[in-house]
Formats: sequence, structure tokens, C-alpha cells
Amino acid sequence: MGRLIKLENPPRINGYASVVGKREHEGPLSADFDVHDKSEKFGMDTWEKAESEMQRMALNLALSKAKLSPDALGAIFAGDLQNQCVGSVYASENFHTPYFGLYGACSTFAESIMLSALFVSAGYFDICGAVTSSHFCAAERQYRFPLEYGGQRAPTAQRTVTGAGAMVIGGGNTGVKITEVMPGRVVDKGINDVNNMGAAMAPAAIDTIESYFNESGKSPTEFDLILTGDLGAEGHSITLEYLQKRGLDIAAVYSDCGLMIFNRKTQDMHSGGSGCGCSASVVCGNIMKRFEKGTLHDILYIATGALMSPSSLQQGLSIPGIAHLVRLEA
Amino acid sequence: MGRLIKLENPPRINGYASVVGKREHEGPLSADFDVHDKSEKFGMDTWEKAESEMQRMALNLALSKAKLSPDALGAIFAGDLQNQCVGSVYASENFHTPYFGLYGACSTFAESIMLSALFVSAGYFDICGAVTSSHFCAAERQYRFPLEYGGQRAPTAQRTVTGAGAMVIGGGNTGVKITEVMPGRVVDKGINDVNNMGAAMAPAAIDTIESYFNESGKSPTEFDLILTGDLGAEGHSITLEYLQKRGLDIAAVYSDCGLMIFNRKTQDMHSGGSGCGCSASVVCGNIMKRFEKGTLHDILYIATGALMSPSSLQQGLSIPGIAHLVRLEA
Repeated sequence: MGRLIKLENPPRINGYASVVGKREHEGPLSADFDVHDKSEKFGMDTWEKAESEMQRMALNLALSKAKLSPDALGAIFAGDLQNQCVGSVYASENFHTPYFGLYGACSTFAESIMLSALFVSAGYFDICGAVTSSHFCAAERQYRFPLEYGGQRAPTAQRTVTGAGAMVIGGGNTGVKITEVMPGRVVDKGINDVNNMGAAMAPAAIDTIESYFNESGKSPTEFDLILTGDLGAEGHSITLEYLQKRGLDIAAVYSDCGLMIFNRKTQDMHSGGSGCGCSASVVCGNIMKRFEKGTLHDILYIATGALMSPSSLQQGLSIPGIAHLVRLEA
Repeated sequence: MGRLIKLENPPRINGYASVVGKREHEGPLSADFDVHDKSEKFGMDTWEKAESEMQRMALNLALSKAKLSPDALGAIFAGDLQNQCVGSVYASENFHTPYFGLYGACSTFAESIMLSALFVSAGYFDICGAVTSSHFCAAERQYRFPLEYGGQRAPTAQRTVTGAGAMVIGGGNTGVKITEVMPGRVVDKGINDVNNMGAAMAPAAIDTIESYFNESGKSPTEFDLILTGDLGAEGHSITLEYLQKRGLDIAAVYSDCGLMIFNRKTQDMHSGGSGCGCSASVVCGNIMKRFEKGTLHDILYIATGALMSPSSLQQGLSIPGIAHLVRLEA
């Protein structure tokens, strides 16, 4: 059966906001983020609490841009990279509203948008909040080494973005529409190099992009932008080349949030940005601003996730990937 | 705004299955489980892979009872307790279908059923699979100590169930109906005793049960059973007493999967069972069998989760709880 879901009566993005850390604020998309904190602590005493605070700020700001109070939220769909997704849990305590905890690794923001849009479109709730985050310092000590260790990174490694993005999704006649969604499948091509997540996630992106064009009958140039989440330099080139070999050329409109968020030449960011907060902050920053300015009209956003854990890798398992697609139209 | 969602055209449970370990098979609900393995390895070489295998077996068996092939699945909604929910990821690789990763701790099975039912009811997919699991040995080494350490457990501690439960949810005219759902809120009353999860989760159960009766206008005795997920002895008595003080007496019809799955006198299970696999295997075993026999007609299933991580506790944070409600009718 088909994977593509077309939303009749498409929900609208009523409000959106992005919150980022120091390096993201120093990058090329700086002007598009709403909030940043150079200390990356956001007034908290741990990196983990700082991450929750970024989520709280992003969702609060998205609500206030939508001129809505937190009471208006029917449900929150949220996730992050911390074990047991506690970053989102402690953030959501502030909103006293139904909470759906999600885990899709770096694909979580598209999963959150998708579920929010489907809930609004079905009339289950009038307004839903989608929010995700990641924090470089929290992710480093959980997945790799504490910062104090000063570990070296491989050339193909990516840097976890310190950032959060939130959207308030509801009805109305203004704002960007969510018109189609396609949930991803778990795709595992046996990649087990934890320093090359881009290569591990690329097969899932390829699977979803190819399925979308097969099912929709559309062609890539009908879109202003095809935007993957955080494939970085390695994953971006694998996706482009492989799709070209399969007869699908997306080069003219293809970009990746992980490549956009940092200046790889001046910021020493190796293969680019990654993490749940990467595409969340880019989409809720630069992309939404470009929709507002009228320079984007119709895009495909495909967030990618590497669904491994440090234990599964230690036990010799490979890194499965997933890619969820959302179509945004002006 | 209200939290209760009534499903017009209620979806049906087309198939269900449960898979458990040794202690669960030795307990009072033994005869109701479909599959067990005394070694708890299910043919695998790690506890973590064994957990994925339990999920795969449960979903496969639920599909075959529903006389459906895996191709019929529009999407899988799944989760577990392993870091980054990898238990569910490696299981879902076998099904090549859209995958929504969820994290609601021990409440995840109700979250999975709820989303599956809402997707089917809205017509997004014809058939969805809900599956969750936990494995005692995988959970012990991740959350507490490796088994070899031989740690002592506190009297209020619960034992993580080795088990998985799966439902195939779709249309048709036969099978148990899912008629109402109420997603839970994150409730945090400042409990931080990791050996008393029941007390940490009880406030969330109380919040959801009270909200349900307020919104629905029903009374507890209209149901054959009000079933919480894994509050255990402590959480069960807190929930009962507190609701009684608030004027809501559910004593006549109240039970808890964590209290049902083990014989606490003969099996030395302290406060009872817990884990994503606890209520999943009890509901997909004993409860569904009682519906089949005609001894249950209308129940409320409220799965409870403790949304903490070992790191969040080490950092001095409290344990937030959540409770998702699903109404099942013959």
C-alpha cells in the first residue's frame, strides 16, 4: 500500500521559532534565528536542562507569534536525543497539555510536524505543537566523550547542533500549509561507522525521495527546494549521486540543513551539522523566513535519522536510518 | 480544550499476540501468553537482540492471527525502554513499512494503540501495527546494574517484565473496538525515589482517570475493568486512595497489570511487574482472551510511564509520569 498521505484541508503553520547556541549563531544563517545564548546554558546549570529550556523557549515563542496562549495547545509532539528523551519531557512540563513522546533520532522534527498536521487535519485537536532539540555538549558526553576529554573528530564526522525548533500547527487562512506527508521506513544497508552517520542515513533519504516521486508522479523541478535534514557532506553527495544513477536528478534544487547551518571552511565543522535540533532550527529559521519573504513557495523537507545507540554499536550492529518527508507550500 | 477523543467508526483489533520470558510464564497469567522462552534469549546472543526478536515474533503472530501478510501494514507504531529505542528499530527492519518511533516509557503501548487507532479512523492507513517490549536483563544493565553484580532490590521496587505485545488494528466487523482515547499529560509531583516508580507514576494515572470521568460524564461501575499499566502495589494503593478522597471510587473494578502478571507471594517480585512489556503482554494475553470468552465487554486501559533517565536522576531531577488512556469495547 502507498506511503504518501495527502492532507485535504491542509493545516497551517500558525507560528514558529528557533533557538540556537554560539556556533550556530556565528554561522551563515545567524540572522534567521530568534534567540541565541553564547554560553549555551540558557540560564541553567547543566547542558541537559539547557536543552529543555531551549525547547520551552522555542514553543513559547512560536505560540506568542501565533498570538495563542499555551492553553490553546491540544497536544505536543516532541523528541530529542537524550536517553529516554528527557529533554522534551522536562520542557513539556511547562505546558500542562497532552504529550506524545517521539523518538526518530535526527528525523524527529519531521515526525513531530507530520503527526501534528495529521491530528489537526483529522480534527482530533485544533492546534498542536511540534518541537525538537539537540545540544552539542549533552550529546557529546552521552554518545561519545565528555568535552573535557578533548576527543578528535574524524573528517566524515558531523557536529551535533545546539538548537531547538518549534511550530504551532492549526487552521486559518494564512501561513505556510502542510499539504503532503510520507512517513519513512527503517532502512539498514549495513553501515557501522559511527563517524559517518551521513552514509548511514543516505539510503533512507534515497528510499523516501524515490518513493515520493514514484507515488506522486511529480518531478524534482516542480519544487523550489528539496531539503534533507542532516546528511552532511558525505550523505549529501551519496544521495545526489545514487539518485542520479537511478534516473532521478535533484541537483538543481537539492540542499541539506547540515550543510547550511555552519560555514565548513571557516568554522571547522568537518562534514556539517547534525542532531534533532539541526533541521528543526534551520526550518524554523531560514526556511520559514524565506517563505515569508516569498522566495520559497513549495518545498520537500526530508528529515533523516540514524537509529542506533552506543550499546547497539558496541554489540556489533549496524546503523539503521529513517527519513520522514513533509511538503510545505506557501 | 478537552483531551478526550471519541472515535467515530471505531477501529478494530484484528489480531494480537504476546511473547514473554521465564518468570512471566511461571506467573498466574501463564496460559494466556502465545509464546515463551525459558532461556529468555529467543535464539539470539544478546538480551537486546532477544528483545527485538520478541517484538518481531509478536507482530508476526498478530498479523497471522489477523490473516494478513506484513505487506498489509500501513505503518508500525513502536517503542521500548532501550536507549534510543533500538529494540523497536531492529525489530521493524523486518517489516519494510513506515515506522513511527515512540517513547513513553512504560506507557508506550497505550500510545502505540492510540496513534494506530487514530490513523485508521482518519483513513490515513487501513491497517496499523502497535508493538512494544521490555526485557528484564537489558533493562537492568542499562538502568541499574548488570545482572552479575547481584544488586539487592528495595521492597517498593518493581521488576521489569520480559515481554512484548502486538496488536494489528484495522477495520472490519469483528474484534474488540477502540472507541475512545485520552492522551496523557506530563505530571511531576517531585518524587525522585527510583526504587518507587509506582509512586512517581500514580499522580499521572490519577490525572488521566479523573479527567476521563469529568469529560465523559461516565461512572466507574459502567466499566467491567479499569486497568492501569504498571503502578504495582505502591502506585495501585496511592491511586485508589487518592481518587477515593477526591470522590471517585474505582475500587470495585480497579486492577493493575503489574500486580496481575506475577504472584507476589511465591515469586518474590516485590511491588510487581513494570516495563513497556508489562501491560503490552497482559493486555495482548489475559485481557484480550477475556474479551474473547465474553467475560469482559467494556474496559479502560490506562498505561503509565515514568519519564526519567539515569542521567536526569543523577542530576537531581524528579521523575515525571504520564498516563495514556484507551477504551476497549467488545
